[in-house]
Amino acid sequence: MTGNSPGDAPLDPGVFPYTAGVYPGMYRKKLWTMRQYAGFGSASETNARFRYLLESGQTGLSVAFDLPTQMGLDSDADLALGEVGRVGVAIDTVEDMIRLFRAIPLDQVSTSMTINATAPVLLAFYLAAAREQGASWPVLRGTIQNDVLKEFVARGTYIYPVEPSLRYVTDVFDFCRREVPRWNPVSISGYHMREAGSTAAQEVGFTLANGLEYVNRAVSRGMAVDEFGPRLSFFFSADRDFLEETAKFRAARRMWATLLRERYGASDKACRLRFHTQTAGSALTAQQPLNNVVRVALQAMSAVLGGTQSLHTNGYDEALALPTESSARLALRTQQIIASETGVADWPDPFQGSYVVEALTDRVEEEARACLATVESLGGASRAVEYMRAEIHETSYRFQLSVERGETETVGVNVHSGDESPPTAPAPDDYAAVEATQRDRLASVKATRANPAVDRSLNEIRRTAETDDNLMPAVIEAAQARATVGEISHALRDVWGVYRPGQPASTA
Amino acid sequence: MTGNSPGDAPLDPGVFPYTAGVYPGMYRKKLWTMRQYAGFGSASETNARFRYLLESGQTGLSVAFDLPTQMGLDSDADLALGEVGRVGVAIDTVEDMIRLFRAIPLDQVSTSMTINATAPVLLAFYLAAAREQGASWPVLRGTIQNDVLKEFVARGTYIYPVEPSLRYVTDVFDFCRREVPRWNPVSISGYHMREAGSTAAQEVGFTLANGLEYVNRAVSRGMAVDEFGPRLSFFFSADRDFLEETAKFRAARRMWATLLRERYGASDKACRLRFHTQTAGSALTAQQPLNNVVRVALQAMSAVLGGTQSLHTNGYDEALALPTESSARLALRTQQIIASETGVADWPDPFQGSYVVEALTDRVEEEARACLATVESLGGASRAVEYMRAEIHETSYRFQLSVERGETETVGVNVHSGDESPPTAPAPDDYAAVEATQRDRLASVKATRANPAVDRSLNEIRRTAETDDNLMPAVIEAAQARATVGEISHALRDVWGVYRPGQPASTA
Repeated sequence: MTGNSPGDAPLDPGVFPYTAGVYPGMYRKKLWTMRQYAGFGSASETNARFRYLLESGQTGLSVAFDLPTQMGLDSDADLALGEVGRVGVAIDTVEDMIRLFRAIPLDQVSTSMTINATAPVLLAFYLAAAREQGASWPVLRGTIQNDVLKEFVARGTYIYPVEPSLRYVTDVFDFCRREVPRWNPVSISGYHMREAGSTAAQEVGFTLANGLEYVNRAVSRGMAVDEFGPRLSFFFSADRDFLEETAKFRAARRMWATLLRERYGASDKACRLRFHTQTAGSALTAQQPLNNVVRVALQAMSAVLGGTQSLHTNGYDEALALPTESSARLALRTQQIIASETGVADWPDPFQGSYVVEALTDRVEEEARACLATVESLGGASRAVEYMRAEIHETSYRFQLSVERGETETVGVNVHSGDESPPTAPAPDDYAAVEATQRDRLASVKATRANPAVDRSLNEIRRTAETDDNLMPAVIEAAQARATVGEISHALRDVWGVYRPGQPASTA
Repeated sequence: MTGNSPGDAPLDPGVFPYTAGVYPGMYRKKLWTMRQYAGFGSASETNARFRYLLESGQTGLSVAFDLPTQMGLDSDADLALGEVGRVGVAIDTVEDMIRLFRAIPLDQVSTSMTINATAPVLLAFYLAAAREQGASWPVLRGTIQNDVLKEFVARGTYIYPVEPSLRYVTDVFDFCRREVPRWNPVSISGYHMREAGSTAAQEVGFTLANGLEYVNRAVSRGMAVDEFGPRLSFFFSADRDFLEETAKFRAARRMWATLLRERYGASDKACRLRFHTQTAGSALTAQQPLNNVVRVALQAMSAVLGGTQSLHTNGYDEALALPTESSARLALRTQQIIASETGVADWPDPFQGSYVVEALTDRVEEEARACLATVESLGGASRAVEYMRAEIHETSYRFQLSVERGETETVGVNVHSGDESPPTAPAPDDYAAVEATQRDRLASVKATRANPAVDRSLNEIRRTAETDDNLMPAVIEAAQARATVGEISHALRDVWGVYRPGQPASTA
């Protein structure tokens, strides 16, 4: 362990290995970014929600995309049926992206996009939309999730096999480094592994293993750690265990800094683990939904005590449906209350020195290092996705058993479920109407665009995919020509094929 | 400072000076008592709420009394008009007390009663009700607030002058010590001073000053600190400042233990500061009422991290009206979530060793000791009530200024007040009906009781008040004879007169 222990002199935030926080002074100088993940239906509906959240005091945007967009399918694809606009906003072409950010100046906001297998396409749409607003790329601030490894491990929205997927990720690194230098080209995400059932230590160990894989790929491509390292960002969960979660954030910072220093001789700036946090969706219950306001408040507090750079607080009704405007506002108010009323922003790393939390920090780091060591003994994250998936599955199974045995208690579920009336299922939203509108819009774009230019750009994507050249320029060209997410993704499927999880081929 | 500092070996809970908590193992061995303060309307209505809360998993009862009961007035008094059953339950005679606890076995529950100037009367009613249920006094567990000093300082429900008020308090100490040994005869309360606007340090300093006054009175009456000391209990607020509040609880424990040891050579057991906590009502807002769920959750967490023995979490709608059944349940669920889901109960004193919280603990103790020193320089708490009142008034005024200047931010009030519709005032409850019923009940008791026995018992109270004998036996006798709160209190007014705040007599 490199950090300090009880009895050592206090460790200031902003000093390697950053156990106490990545910036000097932390929230005394700048609060975390309040960034509520939102997106549903059409680009116009989501634009209205974004503008409402910004007016309510939110300080950053975070876009949820629907499943077809995440899987590289257009809204008019057969496989998209019933999914258009359901778990996020439907984006088919750059026209939708322009509508998504209407009247939101992209040179001023910071935008996070939860998109992975199709991350380069959506980034290209964003860059094209910014250019059409007149915002220059070097001023753009934001993050694209672009963490495909955890898709193979836990989240499932992968398209291509592991190797070309990683090359595509690395193309974004290289492109952003040169063209969009204030943009975070990846958000290395433990959140989804945690939601799938991992422990806190697995969340850290596997996430940093994935991070090291991206670093290795970038270094192999000739990029300097000190150049791209400062733009790597991370994404963790704030789950039930208040003290362990706070310790987890401290352990992750210290461990990453130490690894980057020891292995790559990285600069201080490149060693800083900056992270977004989301409160744990899996900890919410459909029973007694207002109890979730309590859970979210406590989880958010653990993230702030742990020094997060940005935070999404879940709506209390998310276990039932997409958050309503009022539940989204209450979630934001939760962050504002922590920031304005509790005084914790005055004290960086308030648990530093605590016997309990320092011991938990050491324990999480020790266990996370063991997870990382196993992944590396298998050849690193790109070769260990099946292993990580199996480990998480095993942990999740044990957790379920402990719930069934009553060793893990959840209020309103296996304790204090009392005299409640069963939760009422909300009326289903009318996704058919969203889908019809979106298909009309897509048809209208296709009818008015210059198809030869689209074809040329798609051919260029296919050609580039067979070389080692960076794909981003070709994808941006296609985006500007109004090629669709599906068309661009299909062009790459033609060359790369698709990933099949490690199942016997007999499943055809 | 007597406690440990960063770098010292960890201090176990259950070890003098109890900075880490008063019991070995703390919540690992026994959770705090979840004790929701409740009471409204008639005894029957409150009895129904109590039974609902016990069925919902609450582990202790806490009775709110209406203002006439607190002021020693019967429900049929002119001054009671419009107040009967309004801020708590109306109790006129032991018959109401019996109804209040119908089907609740008093030999099994622990009951807290927020009553001060008339505390001996309500305790007498409780003892009589217990006897009629067949519960013997030595098994009764609970607390009577009986802290009249803070009434003079902040809360205002005093009746008699300071000296006889303190003698009445001390009679309860002496009686309980002999007859109800598991009962806490006082809850020395900082909560109301904090709600009136004191700082955290004033809350501790003035509360412990009041505590020392009670100890001195008891010692002067020949009681041994080691006998009554273990049954002294305290009551603090959990207010906005998350870290300072946790530190405050630690500072209060350490300071009280040290004072009792240094001044009285008290035993370990008598040095333990055990306390109830209520989340800060003054921190709640009528605007955006669900924001209060967030505030209450965070305040409750600070109390648990600070090692409280029992906890009341406010209902989110208390800024608007008495809590509804559903808001009372959510408040209780808040405690249950902290207990069952966050894991904090596994770790006694989790902030111990923290640079920030140890420093805050030292600072609160230092400032609280300065407050205590000033009170003692004036001759102790009984002579310093005006001083304490003025100090709190001054602090409160400064806080209001900081709110008006926007230096203190409250979400929904002076920040993020946004586009809310104004809070709707709830429909006024029908207190006239409660009052009419209660007056009928009182008339019926008066019509059926043996009036000569009542008169004899009231005469005995008057006679005893003029001696140094303990008043409790006479008050219990009167209670059993169905004398009313008003009759008993008037008998004492006849002898002692009433307290007039330090105003020129010309206001008469």
